[in-house]
This record gives sequence, structure tokens and C-alpha cells, in this order.
Amino acid sequence: MSLNRRSAHLSHLGEFQLIQSIPRQLTTQGFRPTVGTGDDAAVLPPSPHHQVVISTDLLVEDIHFTRKTSTLYDIGYKAAAANLSDIAAMGAIPTGIFVAIALPPSLTNHDWQEFYRGLGAPCKPYKVKLLGGDTSSSPTSLFIAITITGQVHPEHILTRQGAKIGDLIYVSGTLGDSAAGLEYLKKCKRPPKFSTLSTPMNYLVQRHLQPTARIALGQLLASQPYASAAMDLSDGLSGDLRHLCQQSQVGALIYKTQIPMSQQMQRYAKRIRTTPIQWSLHGGEDYELLFTIPPKWQHELEKCAKKRRRPITQIGVIQPKRFGIRIEDRDKIQDVFSPRSYEHFS
Amino acid sequence: MSLNRRSAHLSHLGEFQLIQSIPRQLTTQGFRPTVGTGDDAAVLPPSPHHQVVISTDLLVEDIHFTRKTSTLYDIGYKAAAANLSDIAAMGAIPTGIFVAIALPPSLTNHDWQEFYRGLGAPCKPYKVKLLGGDTSSSPTSLFIAITITGQVHPEHILTRQGAKIGDLIYVSGTLGDSAAGLEYLKKCKRPPKFSTLSTPMNYLVQRHLQPTARIALGQLLASQPYASAAMDLSDGLSGDLRHLCQQSQVGALIYKTQIPMSQQMQRYAKRIRTTPIQWSLHGGEDYELLFTIPPKWQHELEKCAKKRRRPITQIGVIQPKRFGIRIEDRDKIQDVFSPRSYEHFS
Repeated sequence: MSLNRRSAHLSHLGEFQLIQSIPRQLTTQGFRPTVGTGDDAAVLPPSPHHQVVISTDLLVEDIHFTRKTSTLYDIGYKAAAANLSDIAAMGAIPTGIFVAIALPPSLTNHDWQEFYRGLGAPCKPYKVKLLGGDTSSSPTSLFIAITITGQVHPEHILTRQGAKIGDLIYVSGTLGDSAAGLEYLKKCKRPPKFSTLSTPMNYLVQRHLQPTARIALGQLLASQPYASAAMDLSDGLSGDLRHLCQQSQVGALIYKTQIPMSQQMQRYAKRIRTTPIQWSLHGGEDYELLFTIPPKWQHELEKCAKKRRRPITQIGVIQPKRFGIRIEDRDKIQDVFSPRSYEHFS
Repeated sequence: MSLNRRSAHLSHLGEFQLIQSIPRQLTTQGFRPTVGTGDDAAVLPPSPHHQVVISTDLLVEDIHFTRKTSTLYDIGYKAAAANLSDIAAMGAIPTGIFVAIALPPSLTNHDWQEFYRGLGAPCKPYKVKLLGGDTSSSPTSLFIAITITGQVHPEHILTRQGAKIGDLIYVSGTLGDSAAGLEYLKKCKRPPKFSTLSTPMNYLVQRHLQPTARIALGQLLASQPYASAAMDLSDGLSGDLRHLCQQSQVGALIYKTQIPMSQQMQRYAKRIRTTPIQWSLHGGEDYELLFTIPPKWQHELEKCAKKRRRPITQIGVIQPKRFGIRIEDRDKIQDVFSPRSYEHFS
């Protein structure tokens, strides 16, 4: 069956035909592996002075996304962005991706092309190359496991382990936009057309479906002796801050009024009569960076971030472990800052 | 809910509890990553004089395996073995694995423990370490994507691309055992107890459920200037030989009577009135190595392989591309050697 037929069902195509139909932008330009797809494994080119960083992310239909309101382009885009974000959080530069994908019978050749077009979009600026993967049919759901590789100078590695008492806690961008976009999407019956959305809704839905990995900020934090610890915000501030504190063996005080929130998100929260702080504290998938710096670097980092137009905001201070994780709201320090697990579509 | 309860359902446990319950043998001994699980990504330790090899394999329930006749131990074992086999085929040494796994509600804590126990068994001799991964729930099917890393000296990399006209074609071990084991399993209603099987059936079922990756042979082929091309036999000789020939731009003549087959497999074929050659030509998942060598190395390689007890058999000769891929059966050269796609359980 010809791959040019838009509606050709993938179950009729062999794995090799499928691989050959992956858009060329991902496989031919930029980063080159020593051995490409088509062999038993990829061989990363040697990179003196660098270490290899690897991360794996899993996306399961009706758990992490739904095809009701996400196009295959969106799903591919977000799969890549979520993985790029892990690389950003390590202070590394992304180099390649591996895609393991199980395709339900309902997917068409057009869907497959759109998935790879979406996957390629956030990879393109970094010349990330498709290095390998595996493709299978799936009885019912779409499953995607992406493995991403990156490279980092050993002295520039950012981890979750280095936060010290007194360090300042920062986040990039604004928090809760993705959760607001998700809230809107849950009410939709089909993927929204971006062109038909109002400007604020367009922004929030895009923040959910097509997030931006903070690679450049990760580089900035890693290339200077700024960040003592860093991670990306995939599960929501409350849960992720807990992970950072656990790994660093510290506590944290967060200033509720300092948490950066977009006007678009706050207005939408008001419109549907919910509290925006719930989204910014517990909403996942913002893919902003959460990081800590020693106070002595505050002035220099803020100046540098402003100059390069990387918005960052101090939201708290690292405390001793016994302090726990608490939140201050207008001089009132609330008890334990209870995390909620981010629930996606489940 | 306590992780000690054998029947505890995984849906009640958080991802972090699950990760903490992974058997220690995988996470604490042997190969050490610079940054372990618990961060956004793993950092591979620098390895001068080596390159990093990476491969990803996907296993989907009711496509690649069925829980009717495979225990979770078997599924974990085979997932690891299939990935180790990719590393073997590159002439590399395995170093670490990443496990992306989506768990259906029916899985218990005991299943989860058994999966990791099985996964660890073939990794243990090589001190392969669990470097990271991702865990999610799944609406229905069990879905496993394993990414494996290895290291190889740049001059020792084995690829599918180097076979030259006149090179001798070899395979390791015996072919078709796994397909025979699968045939037997298809008739079973539940996972067989190895202790209750006859010795030959035990052998065939084990070859299917718990295959052995040919790491040592891969090392032998890579460490000397023996092999011109190599790959592992995961999809069956007919299909995999075609891939090797395509990558090397050559044809091949296979001697049907030379294809190594075990007595156990041949006897079982006779018993159920099927032709064993179908299993050895088209049956997948033997995870033996298929490789080519220049004729001048034949004597030395065969001597060396015999000394180290690595059974290998010459099964053919590389031909010009226009010759195609053909099979000779008692002086009669048959037309095209048609590959069949290996079908697992689908």
C-alpha cells in the first residue's frame, strides 16, 4: 500500500516502510551518529570533554494524553519537549532521540507523519537527530517511550542534590498555565483549532500542548557557577520541590505571593471561579526549571537572565530539613506544603 | 499499602514507592552511573577510548508476549536478553538499562518484583545497572520499552554494512528452537512449570522464554579482525539476512543442509508433523548472531570459537547484489529466498 495515501492504515505497512516515511528533517540534518538507524544499535560520536546524559519518558494514551483533544502533531511535540526539558534540567545540550512507539490499528499514515512532524519541531533548533527506536502494533492504546541523549561538560552537570540551607529558590517563566490549558481542553470534544481560540486561551492551550523546554536557561545556569541544584517542573511545583528537597536533604519556605502567574491564567481562573494558586502549586507539565542558587550570585544571575530575556523569579529560600516544606502567605506560615500528584487525564 | 503484601495492586502505589521496591541487585552492584535514578537524567561515566552504544526495544502485551503463558519473570528476562543481544551484535559490552513500563491495573506487587527479578537475571553476569526509566499506569495492556547502553572501542564496532562478495556467512548456536518453544507454548493455557516439562521441551521452551544473548561471541568477533558484518537474529534468518544484505549492498547463497538445528527441535517438529526448516529459516527470537567473515579468517576463527566453546556454523557465502538471496538444497538452487515477517503472538 502506498505511503502517499493519507488514510492508509499503518497496520498494512511494514516497520521498514514506516521508518522510511519518517520526515527527513529529523534524520538527515544536524547531529550525526556514527551508525544510524538500520543497525542493531546507534553509536554516539566520541565527544572529548563531555559526558553523555540519557533520560527516558513514557507517554500512554488516556493517561498522559487523549486523542480526543490532542492531534498527533501535539502528541509528538509534547513528547519531544518533555524529554528536551529533562536535558535542560541537567544543564546539557540535547543530541539525539530514540522513539519506541506502539501503534493502535486506528492510526493512519497521516497520523504517523504528523507525529514525527510534531516530534521534529522542538528538536529542530538544536539539530537533535533521530538515532533509533522500535515500532510495533498495539492492541488498543497508543504508547510512546522516548529516550533522549545529551552531552554536558562534567563540571556543568546540574543535579537535584546540591541545594544548601540559605540558597534562594527560583523558577523560570510562569506556573500553572499548562494546568489551565488542560482544564480548558477537558471541556473540548475535539482538538481545538488554535486560530479559532481567543488570544489568552490560545496561549494557555499552547502552553499545555506545545510546551517549551528551557534549554538556554539550563545552559546559562550550568555554564556559570550559579545553580546549586536544578530540576524541571513536570509534576507540579509542590511535588517536584519535594523531590529536590529529598535529594538535597533540606527543607524549603515558599512565598505564596511570589509565585509567578500569567495574566491569561489568572483571568481564566477567575472566569471559571477557581483559585489560580492551585494550578501554579499543583498543576504539572509547565516544563519550567526549578533551581536554587547561593545568595551571593543573586544580583549577577538576575542581571544576566534579564539581559538574555530568560524570565526567572525567586519564590523562596532553602531551610534545614527539619523545617519541612512550608508556604508563607502574607506573614502567615502555613503548615506542611502538601504535594498532590499530577493526574494528567487519568 | 505495604509493599510486602504479595497481592498488593500496583495502582495503589506511587511511582516512587514502586522504584524503591526494585530488587537491589540491579541498582547497587557493578556499573555505577555518575548520577543515578532520582535525577532528571542519568550521566554515563566518562570512558576514554570507548564509544557509547544505545539501542531501544519495545515489548507489547499480546503482540510480543502473552501473560497467559509467560510469567512476569519470563517477560523481564526476555526483555533484558533481547536488548543485551543488540549490544552483543555491535561487539560492545553492556553497561546500563533504562526501563519505561506502563502497568495495567491487574498487575500485583509480586508481578512487579518478579519482572525486575527476571530483568536482572541475564544482566547480572555483566554487572549491568538500572540507570533510569519511567513508570506509568496503563488502561489495559502491559507495555515495556527498554533502552540499553553499552561501550565499545571504536575499532571494534560490528555493523551490518561490511559484508563483501566471497565472505563466508555464519550463525551461532542452533536456529528455530525459539519458534518451536513458542509453538508448544501456544497450546498451553498457563505458564508451564519448567520442572514438569520433559528435558527436550524444557530446552525449547527455555530457548523461547529465556534466550541467551551472545555477548562473549560478539566480543570475540569484534576483538579480532574477524567479522566484516554482524547482527542478531531477532526476526528470523530469512528476514534478518535480507537486512544485512541490504545494508551491505550484497546478495547471499545459503546452504539449506548446513543450517544448524537442535535434535530437540527436529524431534518436536517430527512429532507435530511440521518441517523444522520453516522454524529455522523464518522463526524469530533465537537471539543468535548472524555474521560474515573474509575466507582467510575461517580456520583461525573456527579454532578460536571451538576452544572457547562458542558453537558457530558456516551456512553460506556472500554473493553479488544482483544474485539476490537464494537457498541451495542438495545442488538445487531455489529462486528467491522469501522472508516472512515473524509474528510473535499477533
